[in-house]
Amino acid sequence: MTEQKATNVHWHEGEIQREHRHKLLGQQGATLWFTGLSGSGKSTVAVALEDALYKRGKLAYRLDGDNIRLGINKNLGFSADDRKENIRRIGEVAKLFVDCGVIVLTSFISPYRSDRDVVRKLHEDSGMPFIEVFVDCALSEAEKRDPKGLYKKARAGEIKNFTGIDDPYEAPAAPEIHLHTDRMTLQQEVDMLLHELEKRGILSA
Amino acid sequence: MTEQKATNVHWHEGEIQREHRHKLLGQQGATLWFTGLSGSGKSTVAVALEDALYKRGKLAYRLDGDNIRLGINKNLGFSADDRKENIRRIGEVAKLFVDCGVIVLTSFISPYRSDRDVVRKLHEDSGMPFIEVFVDCALSEAEKRDPKGLYKKARAGEIKNFTGIDDPYEAPAAPEIHLHTDRMTLQQEVDMLLHELEKRGILSA
Repeated sequence: MTEQKATNVHWHEGEIQREHRHKLLGQQGATLWFTGLSGSGKSTVAVALEDALYKRGKLAYRLDGDNIRLGINKNLGFSADDRKENIRRIGEVAKLFVDCGVIVLTSFISPYRSDRDVVRKLHEDSGMPFIEVFVDCALSEAEKRDPKGLYKKARAGEIKNFTGIDDPYEAPAAPEIHLHTDRMTLQQEVDMLLHELEKRGILSA
Repeated sequence: MTEQKATNVHWHEGEIQREHRHKLLGQQGATLWFTGLSGSGKSTVAVALEDALYKRGKLAYRLDGDNIRLGINKNLGFSADDRKENIRRIGEVAKLFVDCGVIVLTSFISPYRSDRDVVRKLHEDSGMPFIEVFVDCALSEAEKRDPKGLYKKARAGEIKNFTGIDDPYEAPAAPEIHLHTDRMTLQQEVDMLLHELEKRGILSA
């Protein structure tokens, strides 16, 4: 656990509570944590789900490597400690959005089980829905897609510690949702996710 | 400026944009940055404004020392560097909420002008509204209120570097809103803020 440095602080409960925001938005907040190899299709399905939610009048927001690495995690690199802190901060930001009532879609490789479990615990300890979505795709297929040319660079030794090449990807043991992007259509994936959100009552506050 | 460590990243534009969320919510995102002495009334006015916005069907969210220090900034203490990083991270989180379409109300003493200006620049560079609200109150009055008993501890030397006692508060030179909480009613303060939001078209997307 990250050490709590400031003492004598507590979660401030204002007059307007989470439940008021749920009522206002007609939805509950939740984090959908997409995890998988580079090129597995995390962002693709997150973008498609965001669009489907918008068409139903639901507020979603995507956090991804690009907007996070340019902002809150601007001062983090790729060392083991920095990667861990990267995921922790994203988890804390996601939690604030969930408290606000937003359906948060996070797209990060997040290869280590222990890091994802920290984020899960953060949510569950506060009674906030955390849905781990394993975006599963064979390495050979992800490498064939290689949308950003990163596997090529990793194979050439230009990128070190690249997940799937010279750094491990620890697959979720019991994800809430398991997508097989190498044999499901995008529509099937989105439907599966919408079904899960409906089942949990997230789309109707 | 904080050094950008990760390279080859860019702000990811998905299919659903900020404008879509504004339309969905019937409002624009904005940061109202409340700054002032401990006990000046930052949280009081933020809570009252949040309630007034809720009654108009608008989505606001408060970030304050308590929920931030327990979460994203859990690993920061009160050294000069940590205080600076504390405000920077809050600014980045606020910016993500604004991008999502939320009216963010931040309540932090944030005593240094340079730190507040970093946050202002973060917003303005991305075309996001940043409204600095100076919650002005005479030190004598704030100390008389002393809602958390902190001034008493600071005077007794039990808390060091306490703003207003042995650490400076740098008042905003040109805040968008200047509240005098020692001679305005709470209703007057809220009305002034609502008027500003209306004037800027934030309450009607």
